[in-house]
Order: sequence, then structure tokens, then C-alpha cells
Amino acid sequence: METLKGNLLVAQSGGPTPVINASLAGVLTTALQFEDEIEEIYGAVNGVEGILTENFIDLAAESQQTVRLLKTTPGAALGSCRYKLKKEQDMARILEVFKAHNIRYFHYIGGNDSQDSSKQIADYCAAQGYEIRVIGVPKTIDNDLVLTDHCPGYGSTIKYIATSVRELACDCESLGRNDLVSIIEVMGRSAGWIAAGASLAKRRGCPEDAPHLVLLPEVPFNREAFVEAVRNVLTTNKHCVVVAAEGLVDVDGNYLGANMAVLDAFGHPRLGGVCEYLKSVVEEAFAGVKTRTCRQGHIQRTASHFASKTDIDEAFMAGATAVKAAVAGESGKMVILVREEKDRYQIKAELAPLEDIANGVKTFPKNWIGENGMTIGFQFAKYAAPLIQGIPQLTDEAGIPKMAILDCIPVEKRCEPHELKK
Amino acid sequence: METLKGNLLVAQSGGPTPVINASLAGVLTTALQFEDEIEEIYGAVNGVEGILTENFIDLAAESQQTVRLLKTTPGAALGSCRYKLKKEQDMARILEVFKAHNIRYFHYIGGNDSQDSSKQIADYCAAQGYEIRVIGVPKTIDNDLVLTDHCPGYGSTIKYIATSVRELACDCESLGRNDLVSIIEVMGRSAGWIAAGASLAKRRGCPEDAPHLVLLPEVPFNREAFVEAVRNVLTTNKHCVVVAAEGLVDVDGNYLGANMAVLDAFGHPRLGGVCEYLKSVVEEAFAGVKTRTCRQGHIQRTASHFASKTDIDEAFMAGATAVKAAVAGESGKMVILVREEKDRYQIKAELAPLEDIANGVKTFPKNWIGENGMTIGFQFAKYAAPLIQGIPQLTDEAGIPKMAILDCIPVEKRCEPHELKK
Repeated sequence: METLKGNLLVAQSGGPTPVINASLAGVLTTALQFEDEIEEIYGAVNGVEGILTENFIDLAAESQQTVRLLKTTPGAALGSCRYKLKKEQDMARILEVFKAHNIRYFHYIGGNDSQDSSKQIADYCAAQGYEIRVIGVPKTIDNDLVLTDHCPGYGSTIKYIATSVRELACDCESLGRNDLVSIIEVMGRSAGWIAAGASLAKRRGCPEDAPHLVLLPEVPFNREAFVEAVRNVLTTNKHCVVVAAEGLVDVDGNYLGANMAVLDAFGHPRLGGVCEYLKSVVEEAFAGVKTRTCRQGHIQRTASHFASKTDIDEAFMAGATAVKAAVAGESGKMVILVREEKDRYQIKAELAPLEDIANGVKTFPKNWIGENGMTIGFQFAKYAAPLIQGIPQLTDEAGIPKMAILDCIPVEKRCEPHELKK
Repeated sequence: METLKGNLLVAQSGGPTPVINASLAGVLTTALQFEDEIEEIYGAVNGVEGILTENFIDLAAESQQTVRLLKTTPGAALGSCRYKLKKEQDMARILEVFKAHNIRYFHYIGGNDSQDSSKQIADYCAAQGYEIRVIGVPKTIDNDLVLTDHCPGYGSTIKYIATSVRELACDCESLGRNDLVSIIEVMGRSAGWIAAGASLAKRRGCPEDAPHLVLLPEVPFNREAFVEAVRNVLTTNKHCVVVAAEGLVDVDGNYLGANMAVLDAFGHPRLGGVCEYLKSVVEEAFAGVKTRTCRQGHIQRTASHFASKTDIDEAFMAGATAVKAAVAGESGKMVILVREEKDRYQIKAELAPLEDIANGVKTFPKNWIGENGMTIGFQFAKYAAPLIQGIPQLTDEAGIPKMAILDCIPVEKRCEPHELKK
């Protein structure tokens, strides 16, 4: 393989995760080691938007301290975007910018859509005879990318949620008198990966532990069965913890929150949330039962203070592997995590074609859902428990974790200005 | 002072905190050291309810491991209650139970109401000529007990909230385009102590940091001023983080959530929350601005995984001091935390009369609120920053913090059964 010499560009896209910047740190740290191949290390601000507008920053100029802090900084340090590439008009511009800055290595840290963008860019550059190595880095708390055993970001999110559930259960245990129902709404529009993750709060061999009921988008909500299940829990337990995915649907596939008309301050109807809906179901069914609702919202994808060390390390490894693979001549692929068939959990990083990633969605295995549709089988714990191990080494700043803030030294523009068409 | 020999009873009451069990650990550990005075160490299950029903457990029988774990276990390990003592009928029963078990030391870990109960019990026993030493231990995330510099539980809660705000801000920073408003609803029915605590997320000298607006129950909500303030933030910042106390009121003193009619699944109106109300205000005022809401609910008072080490230590000290003071002959008092006038933050534990505690409420200082009524002054940071320092030493259980679970070995009953009248 001939050495390809040029500059590296890295970008981030989509909903951030607690460890998306650990992948960035992996890219940076590794890129610095290949002086023969990689000259400058640039970051595109706000994903492909930053490429189109030629908004680059000089990442090699960032301090080592900042790079280390990236491992425990949530949000996308480079800025994220949800821009969808328009094939005809955007591709030529991207190539123009790549050529102007001699970008020969491109790493997009993101989910399905970002990997699809990576593929389009790789294909277009190849068709135009511009040599570039494109290796994607997986990222999503949703855990829905195919081929990879799991996605960086997922482990940290479910570690935080499961911890919150266990902690909340202690509170409920001390106040409940077989009359307290807590409802926690978690993310997950179409798949139950995150809601299922809450089940890791249960101690091994303790089915009576919270969460008592887990409602997944895969299982249409059955009001009667739910009420009966809550009743059963409250017969033997002081309290009942319900974890519900935001994407919970009825038998017709309608979101449950949408069944609830919320009138805002001006009398306009708006959509309520799943936890408010379930609260109303519980209160209707049980006299004298108290309900509590929690909706951590976007906080559940930012809680880097209690991220999984395993997840941080794997996210870093995914970034590092992307650079190494690109330098070694690979392109048009994404890093995947492969679980080795060993007694002890061990992950190795491999590659899969971008096209196979971009069009797939990993669904939650139906046979991991309990018979009543509201509990999670032991197979899931076996799969997910290794992903939440270890806690991060934080840097303290007056009692709060210190966050990496990039210096963002701009790279001089070389092309004509370009306006984003949205 | 003559030595009083007998058994010790400890109980917990009211809404638990992340460190209420650290105070319990302080009581247990210290009580064991006074073999000449304290014979048995009992816990009443569910506060005064457990006294009335003679539901005691043998705490000296718990393992040392369990006692250590109590320091990082949220919820009230002994069970809590919100039972209000009925003077006439309940006092005689309590004395009967105390006599039957030779209870000579009583420590109630709780807030205003619990200290009021402690006072009633102390007074009644004294009037009946039964010698007992009653020393209360403060506890509340609301930080509203008078005389004490602050309350155990408060520091941990605001550390967690401020951390969540800083983390969430990283996420918003990477996605915002001067068009993103995040609203976080926090606890606090009547005082802004908790909402103000979120302001610790700001780095020193960085007024542009989140939270950009803090809405306290002390300041009646002014819609126009709020909209204008949000507009100002979005002019210079990519996003705006609003922290709002659940007890936010309008000029007439009505809860803001109550201005919003929520129709439940059955068409019945219910109260909405403050964050939903503010979301509707923002969406009405700004076209194209996205809003996000987070309501951690009771999770914010259970997050012991990121409690303040300072808070844990002080909660433990409060429990320990209560026992030492009782053994030394004190009674009818509560432990208070006194800040020493030194360059470096230092706290010593002292005592204050229960009657002075039970009837007071510490309000948030008006002069700590910024001119616009939506920011928090530097005086607060000076006061609160020391309370959130340090993180706890956790015990890991398959990736989730391990919680103390008491063996709850029952103490044999010696009185006639008693039914609780509620």
C-alpha cells in the first residue's frame, strides 16, 4: 500500500452521546502518531455544515489537557448537525473544499445518517478520481447500528439510567406502603434498547428489584394487562417502578403521549408525554395510589460524570482504529465492535462496509422480552452488563466535572464563501 | 452529669436525601463507642409509625459492611413516614413503648416536622418524669431549617443538579444555533434554594455559562420579562438553559403549572408542570425556536452516586454529634452546622433548641437574587460552593452502585398491639 500524504478531517454529527468526544480524542491522539501520512489535523465545525462552509479548526493546536478532558465531556465538542446532504449540489462543494485543504483522511463520528453521508462522500470522491480514505466512527445511545456488537454511547446511557432507577427505588422503598407507582420515561422512539437497559438496576437473582415493569416500543401498550401487572407488583412490593420508552405505542401504532391532549397557557392543544399518560392510567385504575413521574430528557445522553469506563475506552478505541485503518489503506468502511467468544468480555475493533451500516437498523431481539411483554430476559443482562463497567476519572472544577472547551483556532479559508441551503 | 444507661432508638422521617443514611451511619458508629451508657441500638421502622406500632429492628446486629454502605445509599434505610403525631392519643403510647424497651436515647433524623415531633416527645417524657435524651439530626434537600448554616442533603442535591446543567449545556452548545431553549424543572415548592444551586454550574467569571435564567418561587413570574430575557440570551448564545423551581408562581401567588389544563387519557383535567408551562410560553413567543424539557423529579434527591463528599461527611458528623451530645447530657436540641469564620471552609457541629428549629423556615436571601430576578448573585456561590466538594467512594455491584440493605432483625415486642389512626 502506497503512503497517502495529506491532512485529516474529523467531524461529529447527530445527537451527541456521553462518549462521542472520547472517539474524537481517539482520532486526535492516533493521528498525531502518523507523521509520515498525516500533516494537519482539522475539525469541521458542526459536521458536514462545517465542510460546506469551510469552517475548520486546527485540532493539533489544542492542548493535551483538553484532549484528555474530551474523554469525559458530553455534547459534540466540534458541534453537531442534522443536515442531510443534497447529492447534486453539495458533493461538488465538499470535493472543492477537500481539494483546497488537501484532506486525504476523513472520519465522521455519528449514527446511521452520518455513515450514509460518509458513504456518499467516499463514493463521490472515488468517482471524481480524488484519493481519500473515509472511515466512519460509530456513535449512538440508541444502539441501533447493525453489524457492531453495540454502539459507543449506549453503555454510558444505560449505566446512568439503571443507576437512577436503583437510587430512586431506595427512596420509594422507604416511603411506599404498597401504594406508590413511579414512572420513568426514557429515550427510544422506535427501539427498546435504552428502556431495556434500565433492567440492569436489578440485582442478580432478585426479580423483585426495580424496575418492575419495562414498556418497550416493540410491544403495543395493553391498558388492562398493564393495570393488572401494576396491581400484582403492589400486592407484594411496597412500590412499583415502571420504565417506559418515549416511543410507546398503542395497538394501532400511535404514540401514547399523543392520546393526551395538553392545553398550553394559551389554550392550544399540544402532545403530552408517555409518563403523563401512564400516570393518568394508574390514577384512574387505583384509588389512593400515589404516582411520581421522572423525565430526564436529554440529560440521559449527557451524563458523562457517570459514564461507563468501558464505553469511554471503546469509544476512544473506535476513533483510534478508524485512523489506523485509514492510514493502512482502508476506505468506505465503519469501525465495528466485535465481541470475542471468550469467558471474559473482550472487544476487538474491526471494519464493515459503510453501505451495510447506513441502511440497517438493529432491532431489539423479540426473544429477550419476557412473556408478559413487560419484563426483560436474562439474555439481555448477559449482553449488556459488560457495557456498563467502570467509572470515569473526572477532573474537578470547584465540585463540578470540568469540561473540555476547544480553543477553536480557525483554519484560513481558501474557497469562495458558500451559503447553506436548508 | 450522671450517666444515663439504657437503649438508643434512631428513626428517619420525611422526604429522604442522598445522605440521610450517612447520618444514620454516624449515629450507629458513635453509639457503639459508648458501652457504658448505650446498651442496645434499635431502629424504628418508618419513623414514629414504627414507635407507635413497636416495630423496632436491632441495628447493632447489622454488618460493618452494611453500615459503611449506608453512607452512599439514598432513601431512608429505616423507612420514612409523613405521620403527624396526635398529641393526646399518641404520646402516651410512645412513652409506653419507650419504657417497655428502656429507650433512653432518641434521635430523629428529619426536617422541620420531625424536629417538632422530637420536641413533643421530649416535652411529654419530661412532663411524665421519664428521663430520656432527645437530640434531633437535621436532614432536608430544601435547606430551609433555621439556625444551621445549611442542611445535610442540600449540598448533594445541588451538586447533582449543577452537574446535570453543565453536562446538558455541552449537548445544547453543540446543537444550538441561537434557537434552542432547555427548561429544567427542579424541586422547591416555596423556596429557591435548590433552583439557585443550579447556578453553581457556571464557571467562575463566566456569566455566559448555563444556567442562563433561574426562576425562583420568591420572584413572581413575569411573562414579558422572561420572554425578553430569553431573547437576550439567544442573541449572544447558541442556546438558553432555564432552571425553574416547581413552586414558581404568578403575581397572584398561583402555581404556574396550574395555569395549564392537562386532559388525561380519560378527558379529565389535571395540573401540568412548570416546565410544560414555560415551554408553551417560549414556543408562543419565538417562531422556529426548539424547546426541550427535563424533569428529574425525585431522582434529584436520590442521586447518591454523585453526592457531595463534604455533605456525606457532615451528615455523618451530625449523626455522631447527636449521640455524643446525648451521652453528655444534652436533650431537647438539634445538631446544627456552624461555619467558622476562617479563610478555609470549616464546619463545626453545635446544638440549638428544638423549639427554635421546629417553627422556623430559612428563606432564600432576597439580596442574593440578581436585579432582573432571574439570576443568582455571587454571594450565593460563595455560600454554596463549599457544600458540593468531593465525590463519594462507591462500592460497585456489576456496574451499578451497591446499596445497603438492612438485615432488619426484629426486636421482640413487649406491648399490646396498637393500630395506627391516620
